[in-house]
Amino acid sequence: MSPKAYRRKLDIRNGRVDLSHGAGGRAMAQLVADLFHEAFDNDWLRRGNDQAAFDVAQGRMVMTTDSYVVSPLFFLGGDIGSLAVHGTINDVAMAGAQPLYLSASFILEEGLALAELKRIADSMGAAARAAGVPIVTGDTKVVERGKADGVFISTTGIGVVPPGLDLSAEKALPGDRVILSGTIGDHGVAVMSKRQNLSFETEIISDSAALHGLVATMVTAGGQGLRVMRDPTRGGLGATLNELAQQSGVGFRIAEEAVPVKPEVTAACELLGLDPLHVANEGKLVAVVAPESAEAVLAAMRAHPLGCAAAIIGEAVADENRFVEMTTGFGGGRIVDWLSGEQLPRIC
Amino acid sequence: MSPKAYRRKLDIRNGRVDLSHGAGGRAMAQLVADLFHEAFDNDWLRRGNDQAAFDVAQGRMVMTTDSYVVSPLFFLGGDIGSLAVHGTINDVAMAGAQPLYLSASFILEEGLALAELKRIADSMGAAARAAGVPIVTGDTKVVERGKADGVFISTTGIGVVPPGLDLSAEKALPGDRVILSGTIGDHGVAVMSKRQNLSFETEIISDSAALHGLVATMVTAGGQGLRVMRDPTRGGLGATLNELAQQSGVGFRIAEEAVPVKPEVTAACELLGLDPLHVANEGKLVAVVAPESAEAVLAAMRAHPLGCAAAIIGEAVADENRFVEMTTGFGGGRIVDWLSGEQLPRIC
Repeated sequence: MSPKAYRRKLDIRNGRVDLSHGAGGRAMAQLVADLFHEAFDNDWLRRGNDQAAFDVAQGRMVMTTDSYVVSPLFFLGGDIGSLAVHGTINDVAMAGAQPLYLSASFILEEGLALAELKRIADSMGAAARAAGVPIVTGDTKVVERGKADGVFISTTGIGVVPPGLDLSAEKALPGDRVILSGTIGDHGVAVMSKRQNLSFETEIISDSAALHGLVATMVTAGGQGLRVMRDPTRGGLGATLNELAQQSGVGFRIAEEAVPVKPEVTAACELLGLDPLHVANEGKLVAVVAPESAEAVLAAMRAHPLGCAAAIIGEAVADENRFVEMTTGFGGGRIVDWLSGEQLPRIC
Repeated sequence: MSPKAYRRKLDIRNGRVDLSHGAGGRAMAQLVADLFHEAFDNDWLRRGNDQAAFDVAQGRMVMTTDSYVVSPLFFLGGDIGSLAVHGTINDVAMAGAQPLYLSASFILEEGLALAELKRIADSMGAAARAAGVPIVTGDTKVVERGKADGVFISTTGIGVVPPGLDLSAEKALPGDRVILSGTIGDHGVAVMSKRQNLSFETEIISDSAALHGLVATMVTAGGQGLRVMRDPTRGGLGATLNELAQQSGVGFRIAEEAVPVKPEVTAACELLGLDPLHVANEGKLVAVVAPESAEAVLAAMRAHPLGCAAAIIGEAVADENRFVEMTTGFGGGRIVDWLSGEQLPRIC
């Protein structure tokens, strides 16, 4: 809408979200135009339709969605906005796909400072631009004070799968190698530290990052040797390996000393009573790769800034119990189960 | 995951959502499999990936997203689940597009009864099946008691636009006819009645419905004579016409007696202090149509069950002030502004 139709300028510095910002009238139009469109800045949004249109080539596409409810909203290395963009891009990328477009839907709590919302929207816009994946459509709802928690964001992503590729959860085979792209536990510990107001000698920073560039190099190097990829977010590496074991009908044998964990993360986990294997990551991936492709994929990953600490951490094995077993250098072993309870609420 | 991996069956009758249902572990896998996959039932979900893959033809696609926070969760004529499916299908359809796939993301409040959640999921599944638009991917988050309000749902839809069609908000021209597909105000009054525990002699039922079938007949009848369509949800017909006036740079002149409103809705609006022009609809559309196509489009709409009360309610006019003017049979007129405040919070 044209600026002259506004009665007064949006007071981003001192203003707060109120119910009129979700009512479909003038206040909502102003919030959308002055805050969200400003931050996301592209022609699809400027066109002002309730949907975004774009041309696609014939082929295979993927669609994925996630809601983000992380608490606190801001943490070292990111915030709920950049996390939503990275997380959704990563779920598209885990299919080997190139992400094309994002949507973003906001549930705002009455009373949220507009300055906080702007900081989040700007962070989302910056993350989307850095990744080259625009936020082309969105929605805003407002609920009464005490009926939400600041802001929740739901993002959906679509992308296009390179011809011939069909990664899927049931495709791991005994003998396949398991490659992890880097250290585990950084995101979960960063959020928990902030939530509990802990500070450590070495700052622990969330690994939140968009992995589609890394994935593109893996696809080039590994092609159809890539069986399945997944980003170990909620539930951590332990849950991801258990999911894949269940879905593929295999076991996994993982060498504990091959799994990279930063010393400060290990220390913080001991303090907080957490197991790094179950702590969320937001910029890491696990790939199950055919043995003959594993070295080429690993080399490609190590040549990418987001994969420089990548390692082969183990392999899939025939196991009708579908157990994930962690072996130690001394010949010992333990079963890694999924958590049945809740270790880290509101981590993403 | 295979059922044998569950420790005990999900107690849908007496159970409640707890934080473990959002933790990425066994409890979440069980909730997703036994409640959501059961309700939505399709091969994409059964494949168990974090994204759904499908083949597309070369062409133009649209993407749209919405969050649903309606309170109460259940009302006459629908619930938050069917509303989310219908609303997102409609935003795809308003581009003249055929909806293909939906995603659904849930934010659940700890303590929500699993039986309520199942009722909502079953209703979504039924709405999606009736519309022929599957829910192919999703996400579940859980927040602590008092940090949300039962359940919020975010849905995203994608669809394909018939060749040659490019409906958009800026395309209304002076002389174009404004067609409304039926009565206004039904949804908003149905929700408000339920929220305030009002009962009327004649029950008022939400008009929540998927409009893509109606739109397909309009596209066949009107083709490129269709300039722009929009569903008058939050803010009602008044906000929709003001948005289109702003975006197209025209005014609208609407004949008050041509706008269909059910007598019981008029009566309830008087009681509740609402103006039907600003009350939300969830199964209605406004189409701005070239004058030479208007009769053919209207006839096609009237032949469809969801358009049988369709009417030409006015036309676009040259007006640099972009006013929406309502004229009465007695020659009078008034300007219909958008609401600047909030008339009906949490209506969708």
